[in-house]
Amino acid sequence: MIKTVCLDRTTKEFTENFPIADISEERLNDKNVFWADVSDPTSQDFLLLAEEFNFHPLSIEDCRHAHQRPKVEEYQGYYFMVLYEAELAGPTDHLELRELNIFLGSNYLVTVHSRPIRAVDTAGRLWKEWLDRADHGAGMIAYLLIDAIVDDYMPLLDILSERMDDLEDKIFGDFQPETIQEIFRVKKQLLYLRRSITPLRDVFNTMLRREQPIFARETHVYFQDVFDHIIRVADTIDTLRDMLSSTMEAYLSVSGNRMNMVMKRLTSVATILMSVTLIAGIYGMNFEFMPELRWKYGYIFALSSIVAVGFGIYFYLRKVKWL
Amino acid sequence: MIKTVCLDRTTKEFTENFPIADISEERLNDKNVFWADVSDPTSQDFLLLAEEFNFHPLSIEDCRHAHQRPKVEEYQGYYFMVLYEAELAGPTDHLELRELNIFLGSNYLVTVHSRPIRAVDTAGRLWKEWLDRADHGAGMIAYLLIDAIVDDYMPLLDILSERMDDLEDKIFGDFQPETIQEIFRVKKQLLYLRRSITPLRDVFNTMLRREQPIFARETHVYFQDVFDHIIRVADTIDTLRDMLSSTMEAYLSVSGNRMNMVMKRLTSVATILMSVTLIAGIYGMNFEFMPELRWKYGYIFALSSIVAVGFGIYFYLRKVKWL
Amino acid sequence: MIKTVCLDRTTKEFTENFPIADISEERLNDKNVFWADVSDPTSQDFLLLAEEFNFHPLSIEDCRHAHQRPKVEEYQGYYFMVLYEAELAGPTDHLELRELNIFLGSNYLVTVHSRPIRAVDTAGRLWKEWLDRADHGAGMIAYLLIDAIVDDYMPLLDILSERMDDLEDKIFGDFQPETIQEIFRVKKQLLYLRRSITPLRDVFNTMLRREQPIFARETHVYFQDVFDHIIRVADTIDTLRDMLSSTMEAYLSVSGNRMNMVMKRLTSVATILMSVTLIAGIYGMNFEFMPELRWKYGYIFALSSIVAVGFGIYFYLRKVKWL
Amino acid sequence: MIKTVCLDRTTKEFTENFPIADISEERLNDKNVFWADVSDPTSQDFLLLAEEFNFHPLSIEDCRHAHQRPKVEEYQGYYFMVLYEAELAGPTDHLELRELNIFLGSNYLVTVHSRPIRAVDTAGRLWKEWLDRADHGAGMIAYLLIDAIVDDYMPLLDILSERMDDLEDKIFGDFQPETIQEIFRVKKQLLYLRRSITPLRDVFNTMLRREQPIFARETHVYFQDVFDHIIRVADTIDTLRDMLSSTMEAYLSVSGNRMNMVMKRLTSVATILMSVTLIAGIYGMNFEFMPELRWKYGYIFALSSIVAVGFGIYFYLRKVKWL
Amino acid sequence: MIKTVCLDRTTKEFTENFPIADISEERLNDKNVFWADVSDPTSQDFLLLAEEFNFHPLSIEDCRHAHQRPKVEEYQGYYFMVLYEAELAGPTDHLELRELNIFLGSNYLVTVHSRPIRAVDTAGRLWKEWLDRADHGAGMIAYLLIDAIVDDYMPLLDILSERMDDLEDKIFGDFQPETIQEIFRVKKQLLYLRRSITPLRDVFNTMLRREQPIFARETHVYFQDVFDHIIRVADTIDTLRDMLSSTMEAYLSVSGNRMNMVMKRLTSVATILMSVTLIAGIYGMNFEFMPELRWKYGYIFALSSIVAVGFGIYFYLRKVKWL
Repeated sequence: MIKTVCLDRTTKEFTENFPIADISEERLNDKNVFWADVSDPTSQDFLLLAEEFNFHPLSIEDCRHAHQRPKVEEYQGYYFMVLYEAELAGPTDHLELRELNIFLGSNYLVTVHSRPIRAVDTAGRLWKEWLDRADHGAGMIAYLLIDAIVDDYMPLLDILSERMDDLEDKIFGDFQPETIQEIFRVKKQLLYLRRSITPLRDVFNTMLRREQPIFARETHVYFQDVFDHIIRVADTIDTLRDMLSSTMEAYLSVSGNRMNMVMKRLTSVATILMSVTLIAGIYGMNFEFMPELRWKYGYIFALSSIVAVGFGIYFYLRKVKWL
Repeated sequence: MIKTVCLDRTTKEFTENFPIADISEERLNDKNVFWADVSDPTSQDFLLLAEEFNFHPLSIEDCRHAHQRPKVEEYQGYYFMVLYEAELAGPTDHLELRELNIFLGSNYLVTVHSRPIRAVDTAGRLWKEWLDRADHGAGMIAYLLIDAIVDDYMPLLDILSERMDDLEDKIFGDFQPETIQEIFRVKKQLLYLRRSITPLRDVFNTMLRREQPIFARETHVYFQDVFDHIIRVADTIDTLRDMLSSTMEAYLSVSGNRMNMVMKRLTSVATILMSVTLIAGIYGMNFEFMPELRWKYGYIFALSSIVAVGFGIYFYLRKVKWL
Repeated sequence: MIKTVCLDRTTKEFTENFPIADISEERLNDKNVFWADVSDPTSQDFLLLAEEFNFHPLSIEDCRHAHQRPKVEEYQGYYFMVLYEAELAGPTDHLELRELNIFLGSNYLVTVHSRPIRAVDTAGRLWKEWLDRADHGAGMIAYLLIDAIVDDYMPLLDILSERMDDLEDKIFGDFQPETIQEIFRVKKQLLYLRRSITPLRDVFNTMLRREQPIFARETHVYFQDVFDHIIRVADTIDTLRDMLSSTMEAYLSVSGNRMNMVMKRLTSVATILMSVTLIAGIYGMNFEFMPELRWKYGYIFALSSIVAVGFGIYFYLRKVKWL
Repeated sequence: MIKTVCLDRTTKEFTENFPIADISEERLNDKNVFWADVSDPTSQDFLLLAEEFNFHPLSIEDCRHAHQRPKVEEYQGYYFMVLYEAELAGPTDHLELRELNIFLGSNYLVTVHSRPIRAVDTAGRLWKEWLDRADHGAGMIAYLLIDAIVDDYMPLLDILSERMDDLEDKIFGDFQPETIQEIFRVKKQLLYLRRSITPLRDVFNTMLRREQPIFARETHVYFQDVFDHIIRVADTIDTLRDMLSSTMEAYLSVSGNRMNMVMKRLTSVATILMSVTLIAGIYGMNFEFMPELRWKYGYIFALSSIVAVGFGIYFYLRKVKWL
Repeated sequence: MIKTVCLDRTTKEFTENFPIADISEERLNDKNVFWADVSDPTSQDFLLLAEEFNFHPLSIEDCRHAHQRPKVEEYQGYYFMVLYEAELAGPTDHLELRELNIFLGSNYLVTVHSRPIRAVDTAGRLWKEWLDRADHGAGMIAYLLIDAIVDDYMPLLDILSERMDDLEDKIFGDFQPETIQEIFRVKKQLLYLRRSITPLRDVFNTMLRREQPIFARETHVYFQDVFDHIIRVADTIDTLRDMLSSTMEAYLSVSGNRMNMVMKRLTSVATILMSVTLIAGIYGMNFEFMPELRWKYGYIFALSSIVAVGFGIYFYLRKVKWL
């Protein structure tokens, strides 16, 4: 489904549901700014886009096949971008990455996505609110869109960061075997998040350092801002990854330490019980001449020996911190 | 065996089985495009190639000796490329890398390979189908060929990715000793895949950033596309490698955890059995004055003690989560 | 609260509590140098700043939202910087990072912070003391401010370094389970410190290598000095991180070694006690014809055997270093 | 011992054992190409070289002191190179690295080495065989020499690769404690090989990218080829190193797994034997009223219980895969 | 204490103990070369230096505060360098790093150090010996000084390398718990050595690649030589670090292996002793009808069973390599 909005820059009037067939003509008039949002595109829609905007077959192809890597590519007269909106969705907090394809021309923007993208709504709303800002061309909509997507990563990372704090507490506190699986899951989510944001860092860096800036000086500063946010997100992801592997290492150490404790306890228990069993064994021998056996308090003596030896070893091991 | 096809660019007619001996002459005519596919080459074939296309002895040498690294080298008047087609073959899903040597001149393409290459067939078919596309010179065939090879890596990586998901499930679920060996095998396959694709990334990057693009502007965008696919493949390999080492780490943790469990169980079992054996040992002593021995229900009492102590320790250990 | 100081460069006189409303006018006069220190800023204050200094909305926005990454951004006519002052605060030596935003224009400096920053006081004091130094413009105040912040990292790193020496001693000496948690805590603090200083390294590097230096030649050498200190801090952090992971590794080795010792001891104890229990068990057998049982010194003989075998094994294990 | 060969490029005649004293004069004549091979050099020889070829004292110094790092240095009028020929020598396959120093001038080549270098013989032979090749100047001899050295690394790496396959099989198969030591040894050999080849990669890269190529266009392509071989060797070493650390990791996992098995077995054995011993212990108690003791088949019953309990536990543990 | 030597380049005469107060004048005369060596400097000395040589306050500051990072900084008219001389000192082979500050002007050199530096003596001696060498200006002294410092790293690394070989032997041979601590100590020393040499690598690299070389062509080649030595030292340190972490890994493997051995032995011992104890236990049962108890050779039979079962299990475990 294609939804097109046209802004007349001189009158500052919006035309909702602009007829698509007129775009190829009207987009030549620089006073117009178009935004065509294509959700859940059909083959028909792709043909229409290729025709009206004259897009290169390769960029249409990339659009058609999902799971592209995040990128910005320059084609004759327009940019083709692939971005991913991230969300922790569902009851199990599954990480959902939703692909958004953007065609950015001098005075038009085409967004293509098969699943609903929150940032499209946000950018649509802000576009109208920011009408009084310096520039309200296609570059500005792109900025609003990308900024909305990138900014959504931060609260998500905050959630992961809190979860990691919990995991860390669990590791030093009452450890559950599921904790490792949970650490592993967060690690994978960070890996996916990183993969969907870091390629943008290099691309934006190159884009902003070009001799002739692509956008007007005024819009340029906004893209610099987006770039800064991307770096911040990428840095935070790296920090979280670092901390996660620290957590993993800490787990290994704590686990080794616990094993040591268990072993010491085993050794202690074995030492105590085997020692006293030995006493019982000795008095279980069948020698004819064993004077103690005939003593009146022999049995009491034996039981006392057992208790005494048991506690003696117990307190000794306590002292050397094995128990 | 050399199979040569010649395309007359003006008439758009293909001549199959073009006589090789005529190439040295006809290739000077720019309207012709040649594709010579040399499969399972003999020394004779190499001599012929060197003669007809005037290839440098060093590139012929590289062609002759298998196991070159993937590369693109510039010689006077042509490029020499080495690529690897990847496939999981055989019943054991053995990774097979098949070398393809490409000589790319302005209007000819020579492909040399000792084993059959699927991409050669794919590119041959598409060359004819795409005749109406902008450019159908040697650069375009090279694009079709390289694209077919690079695109074949993705489904292969998908298979490895699924296998890794299985391995991961096994690690957290019912672990088999063979799992490590399987992880190790996937790791090695990723290593080989990486080795056969990443060198291309740098080479293509350099090639595409040259001041004077090697290919016509129109073909250039296609090579940009191949470059993008190469990066995507390389990125995916790196992600899979990252995930594999996470899996490995997770295994170590899970393994440490399991060991802890086993040790705790050992300690528990030893504690219970040794304790009750002690009771039996005590009543096995031969003292003359052991009143219990003469009790009517002494035996029942002893057995009950054994059961009581056994269960007492058992429930205690249960409570502290050692059992 | 905004506190503004104005320095008249010709008369070298300071005007404390300069009225803010006059800044927009007076700052056009190059002989004046302004420093406006905004602590715990209100929305009102931000509006005032935007108005008087004509700051770009994006930099005001960054200022408003805490937890920016350390950075230096160039805007039309001024630089916007984010720095972090570090301190080990409170009874538990919690690492506190306090954000400082700096707007640096040709002849004015605006500092914005929500918590008190020691470096602001230090720089304020030095500004007056250094009046006789070559340049006393806004760049110089910025230098004093950044230098004060960066230099404060060194004593903090010295504290962490000493703590690490303690941890190391503990690992090779009398190990406590809390040591791992402590190592982990220092590691996290280093991670945060690193994150708040290393981005500055790259930024300053770029700034200082510009063809046209931003600051006068004379101030330039001071910024070179700050850069050198930043590198030193970053290098020290990296070294400490390296040493911490060495410590961690050493812990794992020592821990493995200790486990080996415990296991050897367990094996030794089990061997000795089980062997002598066997002797007791043999003489506890009820055979009618066991000559020893009737010997006069049979019991003494059995006890002596137990002692002899026990010590025999003990000394043997001692010799092979298992005990 | 100095052995000098002179080639007259016009007549293509070789003069063996050219008198050294004449070199300083004759080398000014561009039609002559000299190759002086100095084996096991004396102080006398160094003086002679410095005199006849006018070498800088620093390069003579480097030549005199062994164990230089592999490098290419530019001096006034000549290049000074240090390379290492590698061989697995002796009965224990000890890695031997033999240093070769090369002075490469426009029309002369001086090779200095204290141990015999196979590549010197190979290059000497090929120089004469390749006389009909385009260029047969000093650059060409250098190419033949370096190529012979670099190419010798490949079979050596193949040997190490096979050895690693063996080690891997051993790790998953019947492990011997010596395997670790062997892994460690291969690792060290790879480290030394890497150290003797990777510095050349960067140096050749710089050399080949110079604006004005050092060698004639025709020789240039040969050095490109050597560079390609160096990269291939370096890549292979890196791959082997990667695989070796995988092997190491696999060993740790397998070892952890084996430990788990041993522990489970210990627990199982202890459980079974302690349980049945308990039964024997119970019937060893001396109670007067133990009805079983008087049963006719009491003994058989007890033995049967022992066997039944033993096998019961055994089969249970079998079922849960502990045995 | 300041010790100044002045060389008259024309007469090649040295004036020892040149009066410092005259330097500010005489150093304007290019025929003079000064070397002022300031050992254990006082505040007075710093004032004098600042005055006579007109050094920037920042470089004086750096000089005053110890523990700078190794660096080369360019100031108006001179270079300021910080280097570290390394030595294994004292009975415990403690690594001692002694700071040396160098001010290098066109015709003067000032060295500042608080502890005696051997390289200062070496360079002083060589300066006089090398008078006949091409250039004997300040750059040459700097070369001699830096070269003496850098060259001193090599024998030190040789000592560490030998120590590492010992450690390695110990790990595979008769391991002592102190070995880990020793490994850890060498690791730390390498970390400090690396930190005091690697920053110089980058600085020298930049310095030597400058468009306009700082030093005369003739001196340049000497600095190239120093740079080469720095790289060699840095490379060797990296190799040693690599080997040390290999050693560490080897230790972990060997340690895991030893644990496995201990555990197997424990299991074996427990199995044997528990099995034979069971036999004794069975014949200790008090059943009335146990025919064996009445056999004449029952006891002998029981003892034989014990020995037979014990050796049976022993030989079985031997066969499966558990003992």
